[in-house]
Amino acid sequence: MLSYICSICHRIYDSITLVWRCECGGLLDLRSFASHFSIKEAITRPATIWRYIDALPFWGNDKGWKSVSMGEGFTPIVPLDGTGSSIFVKLDYLMPTLSFKDRGAAVLVAKAKEIGVTKLVADSSGNAGTSIAAYANRAGIECHIYVPESTSPKKIQQIVRHGATVHTVPGSRENTAKAAQRAVNEDDVFYASHVYNPYFYQGTKTYAFEVFEQMKEEIPDVVVVPVGNGTLLLGVYYGFKELLDLGLINRMPRILAIQAEGCAPLALAFDNGLATARPVINEGTAAEGIAIANPPRSSQILAAVRETDGVIVTAPESLIDSTRDYLAKKGFYVEPTTAATFAGFFKYVESCIQGRALEKDRLFKVDPFQPGSDRKVVIPLCGAGIKAD
Amino acid sequence: MLSYICSICHRIYDSITLVWRCECGGLLDLRSFASHFSIKEAITRPATIWRYIDALPFWGNDKGWKSVSMGEGFTPIVPLDGTGSSIFVKLDYLMPTLSFKDRGAAVLVAKAKEIGVTKLVADSSGNAGTSIAAYANRAGIECHIYVPESTSPKKIQQIVRHGATVHTVPGSRENTAKAAQRAVNEDDVFYASHVYNPYFYQGTKTYAFEVFEQMKEEIPDVVVVPVGNGTLLLGVYYGFKELLDLGLINRMPRILAIQAEGCAPLALAFDNGLATARPVINEGTAAEGIAIANPPRSSQILAAVRETDGVIVTAPESLIDSTRDYLAKKGFYVEPTTAATFAGFFKYVESCIQGRALEKDRLFKVDPFQPGSDRKVVIPLCGAGIKAD
Repeated sequence: MLSYICSICHRIYDSITLVWRCECGGLLDLRSFASHFSIKEAITRPATIWRYIDALPFWGNDKGWKSVSMGEGFTPIVPLDGTGSSIFVKLDYLMPTLSFKDRGAAVLVAKAKEIGVTKLVADSSGNAGTSIAAYANRAGIECHIYVPESTSPKKIQQIVRHGATVHTVPGSRENTAKAAQRAVNEDDVFYASHVYNPYFYQGTKTYAFEVFEQMKEEIPDVVVVPVGNGTLLLGVYYGFKELLDLGLINRMPRILAIQAEGCAPLALAFDNGLATARPVINEGTAAEGIAIANPPRSSQILAAVRETDGVIVTAPESLIDSTRDYLAKKGFYVEPTTAATFAGFFKYVESCIQGRALEKDRLFKVDPFQPGSDRKVVIPLCGAGIKAD
Repeated sequence: MLSYICSICHRIYDSITLVWRCECGGLLDLRSFASHFSIKEAITRPATIWRYIDALPFWGNDKGWKSVSMGEGFTPIVPLDGTGSSIFVKLDYLMPTLSFKDRGAAVLVAKAKEIGVTKLVADSSGNAGTSIAAYANRAGIECHIYVPESTSPKKIQQIVRHGATVHTVPGSRENTAKAAQRAVNEDDVFYASHVYNPYFYQGTKTYAFEVFEQMKEEIPDVVVVPVGNGTLLLGVYYGFKELLDLGLINRMPRILAIQAEGCAPLALAFDNGLATARPVINEGTAAEGIAIANPPRSSQILAAVRETDGVIVTAPESLIDSTRDYLAKKGFYVEPTTAATFAGFFKYVESCIQGRALEKDRLFKVDPFQPGSDRKVVIPLCGAGIKAD
């Protein structure tokens, strides 16, 4: 039976509860359940995240998710360009609502439907809100999305078209989250949060499974991941960890996490050797998708990166727009957040090659952009560029 | 050796020529080449259009396309909703530039690169221009896109970001095509037209192969396809025809083609039993992607639909926007052109069920929206909705 465990006091909760946070204030995680990942069986199934159903929390219900799924997942991995370098991109914007968030939303909403949820609440100013709205309505679940007042009319319009009710909240992003959480607590409804709800990470972990399968069971040396709330990063970590526990890989890939210069609490905490990030002031960044001033799961993120001998660095704000053009000229039109991921990667590679990065943090001895580099790198393209225009 | 053949005078041209139209004014087609479609081999390859390389015109060059590809194709097919009806949608907007046009552009540009093209010209006000620009720049080919002056700045911006030079042309869509063709003839460059260049259809035919493979080698009874220039329709026809010639299927699926009420030369010609469409005046439609007043390949389109015992009908303009909402509520946020495809399908189904459609044109005796209907239908979602906002 699936259950939640508090990350602080270790209290156990039934996983069909509507509780979304422990009484002690701790975050809820899913207790590990036997993961039955079989690559031999997976490859016989359609090219979606659901080919890994054996490793997803849906025992005894191998059909309920079928009416929720829109065929999400198994996004292509291709070389960044034709130069023969060892840098690969994963086109994770090729998802039904055009962002990687569909991995998590599909699993979370399928789970909500399975346990009989009829109404849910989420807060997001961007891709997660759109994704939750689309899947919830497809599943026939009443959906309320809380967004900051400053959200663009175009984004609100899409969420409304998906059939959700939008609630605009004055003030900061944190205010919006608080308003959503108040509504959840008062009405006793399901909180479909991509930050607090542990099922979301069960969806994003499929990113790691796909990388493993698509790279022919040879994992990359470095996985580059943008990080704000850690939605993708924690999923990637859990996914590779399960592969390691199952003996399918013999080491974790190193996680190179990228924050935006203007809002980098995790990079700061990493540099200072802290176990938990201290809140910062968001000084503004084009990389909206990772502009999280006070990430609730910071200690889990920091621990995950450190466990893989990874690094957290920042992307120079001034290079985001030109990096977006750089990627578009290679064929990939992406959101500024993805451009920031590359801008951070470039800066970091340079600091490695030029010997400026600390020895222990130097993931690259040789320039990975040169043909024949022996360090395989995979970078996600998380959101479609047209969404940001 | 691959060669072109004129659709009127049957003159043969070498397929590496820059000639894009026969001296007699006829259109050029690719002469049939041995198609070696092996489903057994295809399923062992990555989930892209290139798993069908044996049926694509790239002998002796099974690597050149790899540096051009962005992993396009093998888009999901899922039930329209959870009601148990037999209507399936194919999410063909899950392509690198977010429209089905990538099927054709990837093949066309890979071919251009193979034959040594260094500069190309195309004309398009929409998805095709973006797609050609993205692939051409990825392939290192200089790219010029001609667009009508009225094209939105947002669309132009994306094409420019992909590295193409944009030329705006005053007047109608036809004027834009003429300006592009003038440039092609004067500079003797490659015309990467999604209408005239036969290689484009070699890409769009993979749509049929995927449907065949994904539906477990059981083809649908009816394939619904929007039609303007016939880019997808002719590809679908060629694809199923090859499967039939190879003995992999024993009948063609019937093609139900949808035009926009405000610009429907093909539907008119179909109704009047004409072999070629007469030009109409575009009275305006939200379904921009199929608003073609004088489609050059009209006789091929009409013949293809008739050969499958298919039908061409129109979509009611007044229902396009509400149909867009209908689809968004099922999770799919699509362009108005795709909404029009559904609006036309709904209207047509109604006319069948109510007995208003002519007996010979009645593809549905039973409502396909009812659970347990025995008529399998596949409808493409051709372009992402966010592109149109």
